[in-house]
Amino acid sequence: SSTETSRPSNVQELFVYEMNERDRDSPAILKLSKKTDTTLSLGDLVPFTNKLYSGDLQKRFGITAGICVLIQHVPEKKGDRYEAIYSFYFGDYGHISVQGPYLTYEDTYLAVTGGSGIFEGVYGTVKLQQIIFPIKLFYTFYLKGIPDLPKELLGKPVEPTPSAEPAPAAKATEPHGVIRNFTD
Amino acid sequence: SSTETSRPSNVQELFVYEMNERDRDSPAILKLSKKTDTTLSLGDLVPFTNKLYSGDLQKRFGITAGICVLIQHVPEKKGDRYEAIYSFYFGDYGHISVQGPYLTYEDTYLAVTGGSGIFEGVYGTVKLQQIIFPIKLFYTFYLKGIPDLPKELLGKPVEPTPSAEPAPAAKATEPHGVIRNFTD
Amino acid sequence: SSTETSRPSNVQELFVYEMNERDRDSPAILKLSKKTDTTLSLGDLVPFTNKLYSGDLQKRFGITAGICVLIQHVPEKKGDRYEAIYSFYFGDYGHISVQGPYLTYEDTYLAVTGGSGIFEGVYGTVKLQQIIFPIKLFYTFYLKGIPDLPKELLGKPVEPTPSAEPAPAAKATEPHGVIRNFTD
Repeated sequence: SSTETSRPSNVQELFVYEMNERDRDSPAILKLSKKTDTTLSLGDLVPFTNKLYSGDLQKRFGITAGICVLIQHVPEKKGDRYEAIYSFYFGDYGHISVQGPYLTYEDTYLAVTGGSGIFEGVYGTVKLQQIIFPIKLFYTFYLKGIPDLPKELLGKPVEPTPSAEPAPAAKATEPHGVIRNFTD
Repeated sequence: SSTETSRPSNVQELFVYEMNERDRDSPAILKLSKKTDTTLSLGDLVPFTNKLYSGDLQKRFGITAGICVLIQHVPEKKGDRYEAIYSFYFGDYGHISVQGPYLTYEDTYLAVTGGSGIFEGVYGTVKLQQIIFPIKLFYTFYLKGIPDLPKELLGKPVEPTPSAEPAPAAKATEPHGVIRNFTD
Repeated sequence: SSTETSRPSNVQELFVYEMNERDRDSPAILKLSKKTDTTLSLGDLVPFTNKLYSGDLQKRFGITAGICVLIQHVPEKKGDRYEAIYSFYFGDYGHISVQGPYLTYEDTYLAVTGGSGIFEGVYGTVKLQQIIFPIKLFYTFYLKGIPDLPKELLGKPVEPTPSAEPAPAAKATEPHGVIRNFTD
């Protein structure tokens, strides 16, 4: 039988944008904690699903899907800590699952826990950068354990600024603005 | 110290059936979203636990356990997309954790995110095939990173059809119809 | 490109204590199942966050954060089975994510599904030992895939007994009782 020497451990960077375009009824803020004030607290849950675009904003890749578990309100930061458990969907290419911290007030690193399709056997981390809370986020994946990623996923990333917007063809999911069978 | 060369990266297939025999009060459909109609929507959660049998249906292995996060109702498919986060329990052999898409209307691949016991260090994917929604499912695991699986887990799989049923000894959890300390 | 031979597969043990000091409003017991009696059942969810200390109880490391999905009440054990999905936070060192069984009446092994920081690329398992339900737990991580852990994390563990308590400097999060930027 073959050995792990066949599993690449070089790092591949992959850039994506996550955008909430207010058309997926997301997030669902479930105020399940006993606290009745307006701040969130442990017990509240936030399932969500947003749109996923390439780092160069030329292609709609798919969606994100998962749940944020509210861990604590952090008054001195005017924000919240969540434990985030979700996946990134890339159409026919497959998906990447992640878990880790989501802080509404600073960048974090999450663990890549696995993947399917071209991401089968993936491991590594992903850096989450908030651009406009909570509707525009930029991610840098540091991926290991997988073959070279297809060029279509690797366009030069647009600088993450509040004005970053998907190309019209990507936003309209026109044929040249999407990857094959993009997740929707 | 030893190196990763000791970690096998050959693929091992493992076949299992998941069956809902209506005796575990599962699933628990939590209608937490604000939508009041009968369809499901983001915000609804579905914890579940079903029975797990060998691919040849001769042995009760254990249970599945976890949660499905409703992501979206897909009217044109008359079905739903879930983000599924759960584990497969194999008695004294340990468990496998998975995460990824569960679509009620087509087959999907989930990521294997880890395991314990004989599945310590496992990675790979699992193909989910729906036979009778939502009570009979067939899975093909594609596992890497672990030593050769025990023969007891590797019986020739029964073709996944609606009439597939566990052997009476497995269903009745008789000694020769179960693995050691099968999870219940 | 380099190959997996650079990924260490020796096992490193890491010992930690998880303590509920009743000051984080944790756990949040969400009785969402339709059963109205006092026992828990499938459908109930338990988000939680506790404090994390070094195995030698000299350092506050950070917190745990995640969710337990109630799978079944086990009357003959006077306890419950949960599917646990959570992370261990170690300040600037990063985090470890895990998934697997949490039984209130016996020790279990969970899967390590990934990590960040010094735990980037980690895999393996963790043994969960209950000392005083549900406020004092002892964990032994068996970690692979990562460089040698820093000495600061590897103090000789205190025997897990009901009287085990963090050192006063750790409990008070004094400078010499914490790791750098301990998670709080």
